[in-house]
Amino acid sequence: MTFSAIEALTFDVFGTVVDWRTSIAQEGAALGRAKAIDLDWTAFAEDWRALYQPAMERVRSGEIPWCKLDVLHRINLDELLARHGITNLSEEEIDQLNRAWHRLDPWPDTVAGLTRMKQKFILATLSNGNVSLLVNMAKHAGLPWDAVLGAETAGAYKPQPEAYLRSTEHLSLPPERCMMVAAHNGDLKAASALGMKTAFVCRPIEYGPHQSADLAPEGDWDIIAKDLLELAEQLDC
Amino acid sequence: MTFSAIEALTFDVFGTVVDWRTSIAQEGAALGRAKAIDLDWTAFAEDWRALYQPAMERVRSGEIPWCKLDVLHRINLDELLARHGITNLSEEEIDQLNRAWHRLDPWPDTVAGLTRMKQKFILATLSNGNVSLLVNMAKHAGLPWDAVLGAETAGAYKPQPEAYLRSTEHLSLPPERCMMVAAHNGDLKAASALGMKTAFVCRPIEYGPHQSADLAPEGDWDIIAKDLLELAEQLDC
Repeated sequence: MTFSAIEALTFDVFGTVVDWRTSIAQEGAALGRAKAIDLDWTAFAEDWRALYQPAMERVRSGEIPWCKLDVLHRINLDELLARHGITNLSEEEIDQLNRAWHRLDPWPDTVAGLTRMKQKFILATLSNGNVSLLVNMAKHAGLPWDAVLGAETAGAYKPQPEAYLRSTEHLSLPPERCMMVAAHNGDLKAASALGMKTAFVCRPIEYGPHQSADLAPEGDWDIIAKDLLELAEQLDC
Repeated sequence: MTFSAIEALTFDVFGTVVDWRTSIAQEGAALGRAKAIDLDWTAFAEDWRALYQPAMERVRSGEIPWCKLDVLHRINLDELLARHGITNLSEEEIDQLNRAWHRLDPWPDTVAGLTRMKQKFILATLSNGNVSLLVNMAKHAGLPWDAVLGAETAGAYKPQPEAYLRSTEHLSLPPERCMMVAAHNGDLKAASALGMKTAFVCRPIEYGPHQSADLAPEGDWDIIAKDLLELAEQLDC
């Protein structure tokens, strides 16, 4: 297959581009040391992430009105802090911890892979993260996006069709000239159903050493790559 | 005045960051030579630009539904081609000429100035240009935006308040933590009325040697600078 018709690569971010689990666990552990909170912060990061889809589902279903992911992250964080009986954090400290999602570190191949692909393609986020989260993360991690798009600019959370279609519309491209890059089969399934091209990037330790989902492609994706450097290679970048 | 509270600089683009008049005239002239069209292409560029505000006003007033600036540019281009009796251009050639707005060249100080300011601030467009126009222009001209925002992501054309407020909301910042940078007093007046900080950058030949408007600041703007390098200097970048 050739990819000469593709003009833009649109990226899932959490898990595909950055390692949220390690990053959140590290920020939590640092706070824990400073505030004498004895906790398994890796489990805390996983629990926080486990509340992510249910929170977005409340927006997707119309149960609560549109709000940024920062707001959902905070609701979930407050729930987790209560669950663990953590009451010695100031509002500023809680807000700072919530913004740990703005400071996630990239996977080792990410910056080099994106930098190569940027020479040939438009690189846009197509993430459920809000704009400021993604902008701050890009500055923190050195991610060379051409455009920061996704749920907030589309007004819809993936995998709702509007999240993809409004983003390709913002790029003034038909879906088939955009390739969705993700480590999650569900994301690619939704993008593919709308006509987008698809690249599966394996991230087998996104959820840690015992990860059970998304270990292999589960669809007829256009590209399968072990990381973003191999994706660049397959795209002749 | 200190600017320590400012986190983001939001930029007007046409005229402030790029030199549309020279760029459009050059693209037109090249096409004219190829297609034997004898025309004053600088006047053509100025005439095209003169149709810009009236076209947006049709959207702002509700006379026509929301559409991207690319679409308005094309309506105006078709009108100009008809006015000059130019009938020997193919659809592809007309489309290519319309996209000359995606390939505008920066002023000499632009890239160096933005690069310096990017170290300290979030740099976002706040332009009436559509996303793909601005993304393509950034790749063409090497503009290091952190976020491409403006009329299309806000769903409103400047100087309507929504254009500014939805952009600062996308940045998750109150207006007073954003500084609008523009060569046009009207843009700064609208931004200032909403609480944004303001920087006037003089571009005395944007409209050519006989420019009569925006030759000097007409409000109590926070910064007056002769170009983007001087702006960087005043912002301690």
